[in-house]
Amino acid sequence: MTRKLFIPGPIDVREDVLQRMATPMIGHRGKDASALQKGISEKLQKMLYTEEEVLLSTSSGSGLMEGAIRSCTSKKAAVCSCGAFGDRWYKMAVTNNVKADLYKVDMGKAITPEMVDDILSTGDYDLITIQHNETSTGITNPIAEIAKVVKKYPDVIFCVDAVSSAGGVKIETDKWGIDILITSTQKALGLPPGMAICTFSQKAIQRAETVEFRGTYLDLLAIYKYLKKKNYQYPSTPSISHMYALDYQLDNILEEGLDNRFQRHEDMANLVRTWAEKHFKLFTDQKYLSNTLTVIENSQNINISQLNSKLQEKGMQIANGYGDLKEKTFRISHMGDYQIEDIQYLLDTIDEILDFK
Amino acid sequence: MTRKLFIPGPIDVREDVLQRMATPMIGHRGKDASALQKGISEKLQKMLYTEEEVLLSTSSGSGLMEGAIRSCTSKKAAVCSCGAFGDRWYKMAVTNNVKADLYKVDMGKAITPEMVDDILSTGDYDLITIQHNETSTGITNPIAEIAKVVKKYPDVIFCVDAVSSAGGVKIETDKWGIDILITSTQKALGLPPGMAICTFSQKAIQRAETVEFRGTYLDLLAIYKYLKKKNYQYPSTPSISHMYALDYQLDNILEEGLDNRFQRHEDMANLVRTWAEKHFKLFTDQKYLSNTLTVIENSQNINISQLNSKLQEKGMQIANGYGDLKEKTFRISHMGDYQIEDIQYLLDTIDEILDFK
Repeated sequence: MTRKLFIPGPIDVREDVLQRMATPMIGHRGKDASALQKGISEKLQKMLYTEEEVLLSTSSGSGLMEGAIRSCTSKKAAVCSCGAFGDRWYKMAVTNNVKADLYKVDMGKAITPEMVDDILSTGDYDLITIQHNETSTGITNPIAEIAKVVKKYPDVIFCVDAVSSAGGVKIETDKWGIDILITSTQKALGLPPGMAICTFSQKAIQRAETVEFRGTYLDLLAIYKYLKKKNYQYPSTPSISHMYALDYQLDNILEEGLDNRFQRHEDMANLVRTWAEKHFKLFTDQKYLSNTLTVIENSQNINISQLNSKLQEKGMQIANGYGDLKEKTFRISHMGDYQIEDIQYLLDTIDEILDFK
Repeated sequence: MTRKLFIPGPIDVREDVLQRMATPMIGHRGKDASALQKGISEKLQKMLYTEEEVLLSTSSGSGLMEGAIRSCTSKKAAVCSCGAFGDRWYKMAVTNNVKADLYKVDMGKAITPEMVDDILSTGDYDLITIQHNETSTGITNPIAEIAKVVKKYPDVIFCVDAVSSAGGVKIETDKWGIDILITSTQKALGLPPGMAICTFSQKAIQRAETVEFRGTYLDLLAIYKYLKKKNYQYPSTPSISHMYALDYQLDNILEEGLDNRFQRHEDMANLVRTWAEKHFKLFTDQKYLSNTLTVIENSQNINISQLNSKLQEKGMQIANGYGDLKEKTFRISHMGDYQIEDIQYLLDTIDEILDFK
């Protein structure tokens, strides 16, 4: 049986989108491949509100997160973390011999503009990484406000992990001065996992030119230069299946309308929050609640694993808390192509299982 | 119109295999994902004649080539190159600050056991990389013979690029003492591009433990450790679509029978060689001809691009020469799920276009 996945990725993919994954192959060095990729780039530029080039990588979002911090840190990176995926970015710096400091806030709290100002005012850093949306805690950091602070430091490359928000939440990449915005296919874009996406500003390109050891496969500058030289082709063979599905899904997204899509995500989030506050508590600082997933404190001390087993018998799946938050929290994702009715049906089913009135 | 691709990857994928790319999603942290991955690993162990662990990476083959040389070189790497893809391995070392020397032979020539002995007898190296099959020149290096030489140097990690041969040619990984054998999905395995595969010996694991900066996403040791700790799951979200298609296609491959599959590749190669010798010349040293693709010298000075355009009108595509060999050579790939009749039909069509009797 196919389950409806209300986990924070992979999420369900619509049948017509899945079918695009089964498109017959084409060579990756021909005009067809160039045209396909160019179309994808243009549509992604619209979705990500950027006129800078957009790069694809056949990897998970982690691949481009690593590529970004390694390719563009010359002096030292400041890694801001409000959860598991922020910590991962720091590990990527360390394992690549990239100098970095980690600034953590408590789980469930947000990174604030003041914190970022304090960090950057030391003058120690020429790159900063921040998660837009942290799937372990359900935080959406106030990137627009943080961006205003980062703009005061023109030598700092601004990297944002929008893996679990882009496509579901409005991110004005250029206006906010984000140099590298990273996302991947299996979250709010409503596609299978396997491809990562990033924007790459002229400022980031210039920085990468000064960094000596950027590796090869995840080197953003190498990808960019090849794409420019070879008419939107990639240095190594990309996942053509994902390119077809992405191209098709971007048409769907633009046809729905970006504002409509963002509103739908907000509506789904509001529905889950209202339900959560009625029966449990919200785990996350309420000023920074995510529109793509909600993390709920298990204030009733129910058995989450058991709830999930029962849900799975009924063809649905939610996520337990991440890491140490297992059983203490649970997570409901509401991103991609779900409609308000899908979320309502999930909540009704949970009510039924838990005997909520 | 869908074309038959006789280019050295991506190759055509059977319709039933393509359909597996459209399988609905599952979570990558559940029992279903573990079971799927464990099955894939066991089947790959059979295909690659190894009892060592097999790792997957959501990347092209280049990703794991880079991961291998970076994760497992402690002293210095010897990179043997007989064409473009050998050179690429050297570039990966350089861009990762891994000490390496490049040993090149002329295009169309093979790496010999004597050459490898000379290189390793210097005592300078603790890792050696060799391509099994070089798609720019159509060379299959004599890996079994080279392996006997490498065995004399027990401190050397033996890395083999089998991207365009594994699944079409027998490679006895463990018997030959190959520590890291790398391949990817879009060649002789008959799948879409987007996933890379490697074996990882205990000796290579021990070496990686001594290397400080291995990165994260392409770090073979990190992938291995996570897989062992988390029951065949991966550190970041893998391409589940590729896993489903790979699992299914490995069943097809094992059902065909490995020896039958290798024989079919040899038969297709023989057919192309005989045709090539009748009308042109073989570009490649005849002692080391590849069973998965044939590189043909354009001794009749025909217009290869024009031939390919005419072929494309008839629903087929071959490859021009690689890089500097463009128009001087052309390449016909015969790997994956093509049958002898497909190859015969291609050759007949070329005969017709070129007015060969």
